[in-house]
Amino acid sequence: MSTWLEGKPLAERMKAEVAEKVSYYKDKTGRVPGLVGILVGENKSSQVYLRSKERASQQVGIAAQILRLPADMEAGALKAKIESLNRDENVDGILVQLPLPGHLDPLDIISVIDPAKDADGIHPVTLGRLLQNQAVLKACTPLGILELLKFHRIPLAGQEAVIIGRSLIVGKPLALMLTNENATVTVCHSKTRDLPAVARRADILVAAMGQTAFVTPDFVKTGAVVVDVGINSVSDSGIVASLFGNDAGRLKDLAEKGYTLVGDVRPDVFSKASAMTPVPGGVGLLTVAALMKNTLQAFIRLKGL
Amino acid sequence: MSTWLEGKPLAERMKAEVAEKVSYYKDKTGRVPGLVGILVGENKSSQVYLRSKERASQQVGIAAQILRLPADMEAGALKAKIESLNRDENVDGILVQLPLPGHLDPLDIISVIDPAKDADGIHPVTLGRLLQNQAVLKACTPLGILELLKFHRIPLAGQEAVIIGRSLIVGKPLALMLTNENATVTVCHSKTRDLPAVARRADILVAAMGQTAFVTPDFVKTGAVVVDVGINSVSDSGIVASLFGNDAGRLKDLAEKGYTLVGDVRPDVFSKASAMTPVPGGVGLLTVAALMKNTLQAFIRLKGL
Repeated sequence: MSTWLEGKPLAERMKAEVAEKVSYYKDKTGRVPGLVGILVGENKSSQVYLRSKERASQQVGIAAQILRLPADMEAGALKAKIESLNRDENVDGILVQLPLPGHLDPLDIISVIDPAKDADGIHPVTLGRLLQNQAVLKACTPLGILELLKFHRIPLAGQEAVIIGRSLIVGKPLALMLTNENATVTVCHSKTRDLPAVARRADILVAAMGQTAFVTPDFVKTGAVVVDVGINSVSDSGIVASLFGNDAGRLKDLAEKGYTLVGDVRPDVFSKASAMTPVPGGVGLLTVAALMKNTLQAFIRLKGL
Repeated sequence: MSTWLEGKPLAERMKAEVAEKVSYYKDKTGRVPGLVGILVGENKSSQVYLRSKERASQQVGIAAQILRLPADMEAGALKAKIESLNRDENVDGILVQLPLPGHLDPLDIISVIDPAKDADGIHPVTLGRLLQNQAVLKACTPLGILELLKFHRIPLAGQEAVIIGRSLIVGKPLALMLTNENATVTVCHSKTRDLPAVARRADILVAAMGQTAFVTPDFVKTGAVVVDVGINSVSDSGIVASLFGNDAGRLKDLAEKGYTLVGDVRPDVFSKASAMTPVPGGVGLLTVAALMKNTLQAFIRLKGL
């Protein structure tokens, strides 16, 4: 019997824990954590993501604001803005919503954030501390995945974990975190020879390459745990039918929103896995919950609590 | 036919290239790169390593000095010393020779070094930039290994690399570097299940766990490339005989020095490998050459050349 690793119960629990601590510190100090999300330009997905982060902040009592900047903002002006947020006592967490417009180098911009306020956990200092197994703040999506696996009591030590995708915000930091948890970790990518065979070694398979329904049952050892990090918007009804048949929810999505969200894993992998995260409703919810946790951690550190 | 991947030809070439550039910049600016190696206490191996770094610096024209500090030096005083070196215009590279005495936390001490002067390439910022594939300075031993593999035209892209050992200065940064080179990388450690079987997947097997002759032929796929990072001092003549038989060089070592240096790989692995690094005379030489390269890079950056 396969089971779905739903993100919601854990995300709610994580947020409830953050809310409780925020309330405790508010009583004690009169202050609440402050989070600023920077949006440069008007990328539609970015706006959706930022709104969900703003909503979660409101839920837990974090003072969040979205700083909307013009798409043609120059690097120097953007960095000066970030530096002023670094100095602002009311701001404990700063995140730059990616992707940025093409003229801005995301690594260059992110490196300006004070590491103590790196709510997304992707500043070079934060990543280096993660390699050293010393991180206080951690990359949100990998942190969410780790919390989800632990919540569902998936064993990690001594297990073979295979991660497909080597991005700076998911694949590489997750590899470090799983190694720190005593898993035997392999990172795969577009240049990997015989990717399905390598993936089939996994007790825990993580799909994080951002390609719709790329991982088929042929990639999966029977009984493996599958973590689907992809969030791909699909509006082609033929593709949706081929993946989900006549699933009512998906048809409703298409009819009402014009698209449905599909992961990097084909839905028919589910029956071969022992457990699998759904898309939507899996890892994505935990990324936001992890952001809340990081912002609280940053606040506690910065205010010396 | 197996071949030895000797470190000396490449180490000499790397040092010659550094020497040439040092000389060029000396003519141009009147300055040479400055390197300070910090030795706290009197660890014998540390003294040997530092002297070999000092000797290499003299060879290439880098102004090196060893700063000898007492074993009971307190963390605050050591950090103040590092901070004064950070401000010293004549110092381009700073390295803290490890291990430090037990009362000093190496990660805490190393994090005080100005990342721009991080000659050993193990400051958190340097490691984070490595994860981002943006590093200017790189951890010396992994950098040396990578240069050695490239020098011998060992293909990396699409190859399976297995690293045994997940240290901060070898295993983890090397995993990132090999991933950046498009290898499919697995990191193993003491908690890995059936380590020999995982190691046998490797086209490139890296032994970096610091256990004398731990890797046996059973760990090695026929024709694999084997990189031996271990440098273990063995003085037991029975062990030496079991590993090397009546090898004249080893017997001479024992007679003259009382020990011989043995890697993490058993010598009889050689005939099963297509190529293998010797110990001594392999990776160790390249660690020092990489330090010279890093110090030059730091100098070039710091002086705006």
